[in-house]
Amino acid sequence: MGEFDLITRYFQRPAKRSPLGVGDDCALLAPAPGMQLAVSCDMLVEGRHFLSTVDPARLGHKALAVNLSDLAACGAKPLAFTLALAMPGVDESWLEGFSRGLFALADEHGCELVGGDTTRGPLNICITVFGEVPAGAALLRSGAHAGDDIWVSGTLGDARLALEAFRGTLELPADVFAQARMRMEQPAPRVALGQALRGTASSAVDVSDGLVGDLGHILASSKVGATLDADAATGVIAAAASCGLGTEILRTCALSGGDDYELVFTAPPAARAAVEQAGKESATRVTRIGRIDAEAGLRIVDASGAPISQRFGSFDHFV
Amino acid sequence: MGEFDLITRYFQRPAKRSPLGVGDDCALLAPAPGMQLAVSCDMLVEGRHFLSTVDPARLGHKALAVNLSDLAACGAKPLAFTLALAMPGVDESWLEGFSRGLFALADEHGCELVGGDTTRGPLNICITVFGEVPAGAALLRSGAHAGDDIWVSGTLGDARLALEAFRGTLELPADVFAQARMRMEQPAPRVALGQALRGTASSAVDVSDGLVGDLGHILASSKVGATLDADAATGVIAAAASCGLGTEILRTCALSGGDDYELVFTAPPAARAAVEQAGKESATRVTRIGRIDAEAGLRIVDASGAPISQRFGSFDHFV
Repeated sequence: MGEFDLITRYFQRPAKRSPLGVGDDCALLAPAPGMQLAVSCDMLVEGRHFLSTVDPARLGHKALAVNLSDLAACGAKPLAFTLALAMPGVDESWLEGFSRGLFALADEHGCELVGGDTTRGPLNICITVFGEVPAGAALLRSGAHAGDDIWVSGTLGDARLALEAFRGTLELPADVFAQARMRMEQPAPRVALGQALRGTASSAVDVSDGLVGDLGHILASSKVGATLDADAATGVIAAAASCGLGTEILRTCALSGGDDYELVFTAPPAARAAVEQAGKESATRVTRIGRIDAEAGLRIVDASGAPISQRFGSFDHFV
Repeated sequence: MGEFDLITRYFQRPAKRSPLGVGDDCALLAPAPGMQLAVSCDMLVEGRHFLSTVDPARLGHKALAVNLSDLAACGAKPLAFTLALAMPGVDESWLEGFSRGLFALADEHGCELVGGDTTRGPLNICITVFGEVPAGAALLRSGAHAGDDIWVSGTLGDARLALEAFRGTLELPADVFAQARMRMEQPAPRVALGQALRGTASSAVDVSDGLVGDLGHILASSKVGATLDADAATGVIAAAASCGLGTEILRTCALSGGDDYELVFTAPPAARAAVEQAGKESATRVTRIGRIDAEAGLRIVDASGAPISQRFGSFDHFV
């Protein structure tokens, strides 16, 4: 099968939202009047971002999910995406699964494939995603203020637990492992929550490299510090609630696990009811895990407010 | 050096055109009222699209150039781009050269880096480019009509000559090789010509996989056929004009060489003066090389109109 047959068979679908579908030199996008276009791109490499054994449908889901998560962190509504794909060869069964998982999530969010590129090479998936947001309403990393609460969506640490179980550094009961593995392989981007938080959250970022590292982006951009309640953050690990792992490993997973694709965001205490309401509207759990301080630096404490000596890193591809 | 230091040192520059620069979850773009956004993405893989020995500054240039060429083929004005980069490790001298070549071309076209991703992995460069075009004015592949002239910009076949010289299948005089190599490593995207052809050309595509293959996209989208003058097309090889190569190899390079990043476009005969004027305004050579027929299929003839028996393929990554 050649390059163009491959595109036609697995990736070309009738255009709905774009004035021009897949198959010209460019796709054309027309944001509605008063809207800005939010753009993000993420590249997934075999062996770095996913294991070669992953189910291709789950990989298709995840490749788009990590990009939709960036739109969610800006409060943008998904519109369209491009897909560039390098593959060692044409594997029809892989392509069938990958495109099925990809389009299932795309359809769920009304996000249309409008263009891309395919080439031979080591497996690499690069998606650029487009969303729209009313001009001036995007959630940024730079809006946190001293006194704001820090919130996190959903659950943290499960993807890392699954990764460690794959690596053999810990053991999980079969049902816990299955649940954690789903969180690692099929994260649910918090798209509805992100949009519901527009006008309420003062800043937001999505958790891809770990809570501590990604919260650090908000602190740096907003020029503030924070106090983080490690027990509150660890309390939102879903899969490991009752599997007998020690506090230290659970804290590591929750605070610097990475691959969570949850939102960490800030909002003034006066907006607590509005945040709870945004969570309810989007059927997404929201948990308060700390507060923004005027003093620079991140202080990590336990539920009693006592400092924790454990150190937490952040994922970095080059360190 | 970590991922974020690397981005700050080599890729972060003050935002000019985007409401938000590099460093949030998304970039924000706001096309002017009445404008559509043209979007294209291309992925370059080491060993497939470039040799490992290529000068990194030339590679930075080429990675953006092939994307700007897609905007040119739509008649769009460049605005911004995202860059996703997988690298085996941090090589500062490579990054310095790559970013220098990339930004030199970006600045030439007023095209701003607004976001991206860096990760460890086999060298892979994925750029998504954004341009703007008045709503309804984009040059498409689907607009060619029987009777239209077929035109090509600039020169064809030189990149392929350089590749064959690298492969050792032919020899070129040193000055001819240097000229051909520049065409392969630093193609000039026909951005000004593309915009000048809006309202004049009936269809356009950029030549990346070879003239015959890419013209084929116009024929398929426009549901027409064509007669192509192989001698006229071969006449626009720049580097090989006087290096004594045979007709057959020159025709192969010009008609199916690939990597040219020229525009092949159509326009009614009544628009010949307008096409020449667009070429003059953009300081780009334009050459008439055939005509669109109502009859399906592509007929390749010599200057006398006699059919040519030589077959011409098109580059395909998976065949």
